[in-house]
Amino acid sequence: MGVVNMDAKLAKIAGHWQPGVVARLNDYEVKLVKVHGDFVWHSHDDTDELFVVHKGEINIQFRNRDNWVRAGELFVVPKGVEHRPCAPAECEMMLIEPRGVVNTGDAGGDRTYAPQWLE
Amino acid sequence: MGVVNMDAKLAKIAGHWQPGVVARLNDYEVKLVKVHGDFVWHSHDDTDELFVVHKGEINIQFRNRDNWVRAGELFVVPKGVEHRPCAPAECEMMLIEPRGVVNTGDAGGDRTYAPQWLE
Repeated sequence: MGVVNMDAKLAKIAGHWQPGVVARLNDYEVKLVKVHGDFVWHSHDDTDELFVVHKGEINIQFRNRDNWVRAGELFVVPKGVEHRPCAPAECEMMLIEPRGVVNTGDAGGDRTYAPQWLE
Repeated sequence: MGVVNMDAKLAKIAGHWQPGVVARLNDYEVKLVKVHGDFVWHSHDDTDELFVVHKGEINIQFRNRDNWVRAGELFVVPKGVEHRPCAPAECEMMLIEPRGVVNTGDAGGDRTYAPQWLE
């Protein structure tokens, strides 16, 4: 596996909320994603989830507070904590979590997307 | 744990090759580090290691090739692969690897540094 340029990989992603896998770290995956708008409330019962904002800003809402994360910032959603990512404008992020984690967590539904390897 | 601003955390790091832990992701640690110069050849027999360059550039040398990684780029060193990070000028990076990984891997020596939690 070679060096991954985030901008070059992100340029290949068309849709929002559709992560592409760009690297593997043991049994974890490094994903890149473009997001815009409000996602669904969900939680991941078995794992924490790391968000690193590459461009723009996002509010990773908890039920009891806002968590604004901006370019150059990172945030970990602890396992089991209900959250909803909301991006008022397009935001580009890196996500790191174990392989096989579903983007919609326990919520499921039509926003569920199986991440694809991004060549 | 709150939102982590990488620049603010990096400003608290004085030395080179002395990672600070800024977040935990399950049994993994997210570390920030400033580097400059050549590190020691080493490998990690039990784990891959993720480097994400925040500022500057670094050559994560393998015995048989150079791997230049620049700001906005990431690179995974597979477990067991001997490598030597070399930064001709100061470079700021995020590292992600399981908790307890020693920076000098199998090599040990006086460059070994136990990462500290960075408040």
